[in-house]
Amino acid sequence: MIAKSMVEYVKGSSVIRAMFEEGKRLADIYGAENVYDYSLGNPSVEPPAQVREAMVDIIRNEDQNLVHGYMNNAGYEDVRETIAESLNKKFGTKFTLKNILMTVGAAGGLNVILKTLIDAGDEVVTFSPFFGEYRNYVANFSGRLVIVPPTDDFIPDPELFEKALTPKTKAVIINNPNNPTGVVYSEDTIKRLVDVLEKKQKEYGTSIYLIADEPYRELVYDGVSVPYLTKYYDNTIVGYSYSKSLSLPGERIGYLVMPNELDDFENIIQAAGIANRILGFVNAPSLIQRTVAKCVDAEVDVEAYNYNRELLYNSLTDMGFECIKPQGAFYLFVKAPGGDDKAFCDKAKEFNLLLVPGTTFNGPGYVRIAYCVSPDMIKRSLPAFEKLASFYS
Amino acid sequence: MIAKSMVEYVKGSSVIRAMFEEGKRLADIYGAENVYDYSLGNPSVEPPAQVREAMVDIIRNEDQNLVHGYMNNAGYEDVRETIAESLNKKFGTKFTLKNILMTVGAAGGLNVILKTLIDAGDEVVTFSPFFGEYRNYVANFSGRLVIVPPTDDFIPDPELFEKALTPKTKAVIINNPNNPTGVVYSEDTIKRLVDVLEKKQKEYGTSIYLIADEPYRELVYDGVSVPYLTKYYDNTIVGYSYSKSLSLPGERIGYLVMPNELDDFENIIQAAGIANRILGFVNAPSLIQRTVAKCVDAEVDVEAYNYNRELLYNSLTDMGFECIKPQGAFYLFVKAPGGDDKAFCDKAKEFNLLLVPGTTFNGPGYVRIAYCVSPDMIKRSLPAFEKLASFYS
Repeated sequence: MIAKSMVEYVKGSSVIRAMFEEGKRLADIYGAENVYDYSLGNPSVEPPAQVREAMVDIIRNEDQNLVHGYMNNAGYEDVRETIAESLNKKFGTKFTLKNILMTVGAAGGLNVILKTLIDAGDEVVTFSPFFGEYRNYVANFSGRLVIVPPTDDFIPDPELFEKALTPKTKAVIINNPNNPTGVVYSEDTIKRLVDVLEKKQKEYGTSIYLIADEPYRELVYDGVSVPYLTKYYDNTIVGYSYSKSLSLPGERIGYLVMPNELDDFENIIQAAGIANRILGFVNAPSLIQRTVAKCVDAEVDVEAYNYNRELLYNSLTDMGFECIKPQGAFYLFVKAPGGDDKAFCDKAKEFNLLLVPGTTFNGPGYVRIAYCVSPDMIKRSLPAFEKLASFYS
Repeated sequence: MIAKSMVEYVKGSSVIRAMFEEGKRLADIYGAENVYDYSLGNPSVEPPAQVREAMVDIIRNEDQNLVHGYMNNAGYEDVRETIAESLNKKFGTKFTLKNILMTVGAAGGLNVILKTLIDAGDEVVTFSPFFGEYRNYVANFSGRLVIVPPTDDFIPDPELFEKALTPKTKAVIINNPNNPTGVVYSEDTIKRLVDVLEKKQKEYGTSIYLIADEPYRELVYDGVSVPYLTKYYDNTIVGYSYSKSLSLPGERIGYLVMPNELDDFENIIQAAGIANRILGFVNAPSLIQRTVAKCVDAEVDVEAYNYNRELLYNSLTDMGFECIKPQGAFYLFVKAPGGDDKAFCDKAKEFNLLLVPGTTFNGPGYVRIAYCVSPDMIKRSLPAFEKLASFYS
């Protein structure tokens, strides 16, 4: 008696989440210290101390009905102003509070902007491999997800991108740094993609909105920088989340940036505010809104993730596993020996290693290893990876 | 270039929210103390002190990655267990954590359960007047909202209800205590409605789910009690929110109760967990989940709302306005003299009184007055109401 539309979802369920539950089951049997759960992107690094202090300060000293009450659906004005100014300082942009809409995480933000833009049958383009939820978010509004095939190094190819764009393309989702590959797209890559977008907008006489999904923006290594896309392409909307940059994934807090330069700007910001309300988000959680505004310059200890990255990347490649060295996010996207990612994950599970099949990300033949875990767990897990490597050698 | 589906929304926008903005504009001109904003259901009573203490305690003493991290999409297990036990103690039910899904407020909960149940074309029945967002929530899933006409006393009529049920009816939304009328449905009323539901389920051979939307459950006066619907009808799902009971509307925290007795129970709880994820809520905000579990027995000062109710109801009826004395929520639903609610609201605005036209709630000819305001504001506003009454006498 559930909706027919939900039957397939229930059958398929989320492989990632199922893995999360499986991890708990194995931990009950073997002890938590003997199960190596690399399945979930749940930050292992603590939120900065500043977050805790800001929260307590707000709870103790600000008006309680303000802190926990309704505000404009787009968020508190002072919070949005603070975020706009912080972005301007970092990226040389000229945003005001009007350009910022606070959202229930990046997931909420993506749903709000897709509701704002997409009618049934409109096409949304993304690059393979990609965060599997994009498929569901686009389906929520009866859009059609169009997938650009991957390249060997997971850097989007402009020619393949161009082939994916049609007169029905309403939006393109780009995820930089990328989940699941950890790859960071350079300014050069972005410029080549933007050239294609500009060309196709002109050719079709349409507006193609570029949605930059950036929850991993701050998690980068080797000194690389992540281009801020509003500076390269007018029809850019940025979706941000504090889930990773402040280790607050459970709090569901993020924002959309909708610059003045967008085609149909006034209608878009109005429609997005309404979408936030009618989709049932209503507004981003209030205390956490006020908290992140007090922590715009705070950062988690990225070096801790970098330590994990080096340790796990070096160990696995020494064992013979193949993997591009990621420069962002907290994932390794490793080739599945034998080529069957699901079989490889099943085998890994026999050694209490929980990995996610690349198929979940439209990337068959690979597995995603989330290294947002304790370095101790990585060290304890290495003998299990050794055994897994031996099995395939 | 926004979605065609959003164009009408942008044109219409929310009258309630527009009023909220209008209030700020008038306050800038006349001074906040000279504008009487009765438009928004934003609690005026502070959250109980226990909420503040619980939050600080959790932030200071619990593991930060647990407090702010991902958990099962349905919510923390200990939180769900605590809520189940609290409900069992209050209502003699037998819920376990499996029956509870933590949601992003009642709005999130309603969207989750509608996504779980509704396919395009399915019918959802509700009673007029009703919270206007129901229309949008049902439309989100291409359902059809079927409206039972109101009675003079706003108590649902079983015969009119029966006429609204068809083989396509998938769900019925009942809001008790009611927004906008403040009316509380008695056990007798509920039993008569349930008789109709049972009869029609049998006749059509279908499952008709009763969705009890109960954000105002704790805000009742005159010693009335609100029946707990799972005890009267097996196919009941309860949507709850702490927005009003703990004055936390900005925090977006509530839950769904899905009892074992539901037809297709196992699929429903699985689908609801998935819906929570794919709609972009992911999970209810984490710190606030843990907070409400520590405050299951806390309550806002309902007597403060009762004081407002008596003061405003007595004053307005003394002036000649007509209104049923509400026994719940924090609204008066007052007959618009002359019968045109929009014209009446426009006239009221000339005296700096912000009221909401009943049309917003499918109740033309009435206006909603939200008395979740300071008693001082009510007292200061009475001369303005006097002038308004004189205009119509």
